Amino acid sequence: MKNIILLGSGNVATHLGIALKNSNYTITQVYSKSLENAKVLANKLDAPFTNNLTKIKSADLIIVSVNDDAILSVLSKLRNAAIVHTSGSTGLNIFKEKFSNYGVFYPLQTFNKEVNINISEIPFCIEGNSMEFEKQLIEIAKTLSNNVVKMNSEQRKQLHIAAVFACNFSNHMYSIADNFLTQADIDFKILLPLIKKTIAKLESNKPKEVQTGPAKRKDTTIIQEHIANINEKDIKELYHKISLNIIKHQTNE
Amino acid sequence: MKNIILLGSGNVATHLGIALKNSNYTITQVYSKSLENAKVLANKLDAPFTNNLTKIKSADLIIVSVNDDAILSVLSKLRNAAIVHTSGSTGLNIFKEKFSNYGVFYPLQTFNKEVNINISEIPFCIEGNSMEFEKQLIEIAKTLSNNVVKMNSEQRKQLHIAAVFACNFSNHMYSIADNFLTQADIDFKILLPLIKKTIAKLESNKPKEVQTGPAKRKDTTIIQEHIANINEKDIKELYHKISLNIIKHQTNE
Repeated sequence: MKNIILLGSGNVATHLGIALKNSNYTITQVYSKSLENAKVLANKLDAPFTNNLTKIKSADLIIVSVNDDAILSVLSKLRNAAIVHTSGSTGLNIFKEKFSNYGVFYPLQTFNKEVNINISEIPFCIEGNSMEFEKQLIEIAKTLSNNVVKMNSEQRKQLHIAAVFACNFSNHMYSIADNFLTQADIDFKILLPLIKKTIAKLESNKPKEVQTGPAKRKDTTIIQEHIANINEKDIKELYHKISLNIIKHQTNE
Repeated sequence: MKNIILLGSGNVATHLGIALKNSNYTITQVYSKSLENAKVLANKLDAPFTNNLTKIKSADLIIVSVNDDAILSVLSKLRNAAIVHTSGSTGLNIFKEKFSNYGVFYPLQTFNKEVNINISEIPFCIEGNSMEFEKQLIEIAKTLSNNVVKMNSEQRKQLHIAAVFACNFSNHMYSIADNFLTQADIDFKILLPLIKKTIAKLESNKPKEVQTGPAKRKDTTIIQEHIANINEKDIKELYHKISLNIIKHQTNE
């Protein structure tokens, strides 16, 4: 598996393409529905490009790295080929009707095109429709990353929900904090040492074990005082519900 | 202000005492209601100790670093002195009746006794009842930390609520994520690179600007799919309410 075709020109396709090229794979074609975007990425990878799915050539592997909701329509225009998608929230079965060798090649990361990424630290979650094909995919992933994990579609679904809580929802907690601080004329950066300390503890502890704060201590005086001091109804409610859930969670052993 | 008395022998008192000693302050007495605990800390600081509040000597400054709910009863037994507490959730006014020079000396950090802490990076939030006394407190704080901030009681109250969201509630989001992963037989550590990336973005962006995920994209298909896949009622509800709040928050400019 040395010749790879990339379908897509977004963040994942870009970082993956560059990493594959650096690992001595040959990108033999880049597709994007926008010819301009296909060209930009193809130039980085010394590859031919197209915006026409009926002109996709043969290769050892096709990597489909388009938006989740475009995968089905892209697949409908392809011939049988060894193929993977890079989506965390799309099952393996999307390939079932038409393809013989198929899998998932999912890098667990939010990519930004601009930011340089150390791809070797990114977990790659791999699934193949056969042991043999899965093994080949794992080999490719291992040339890119030190953190390659076999994961079926059901696990990947759970992982995606977990990532929403751990990354998207925790970031929203920072946003809410930022709103309080802005109102009080305090720079959000004052919280960074405390946030980093919280994360550092996760290297060697389960999050439940390092929970701190009024809810963990069941300090209802402080909880009620905080809720009384929050003006916005939705935020009051979130404070209340998350605190109750912490108390419940810490009590269940 | 060179001679300092420490009331308390917990995590804050311990780290503060050691840091003050390292900055060439003299700890002239350590008090704890437990004589044994007072002795342990006093030995580290080459200081005399007591468990009797009526035997507190004179000093340039008394630092009250006991549990929040014990502060009032400790103060009731002291004579007038230059005094501060180290509590984020206690106002300045608690000193008003009895003391002439008083303030707050609040290190924004969760301390563990065992863990070595680089105190110079910890934000110290300082408030004094007079400009002159506040200036003296700021000078002491600056010998300990590079991150000293003047902050009144109203601001500190807001900061404390913000810290609950940013640290305690975000950690609970990690706990919920860990539950999903444990059920799917996946190690929580797989999320650490993504979590660290989320934090790294906060060094140069506001959290709202770097929000990602289904709610940010208003991807209702994924949101509904996730909610349908969550078994526990409370967690379903949290997913729903936090997602709604993200959508609302991202829409309000």
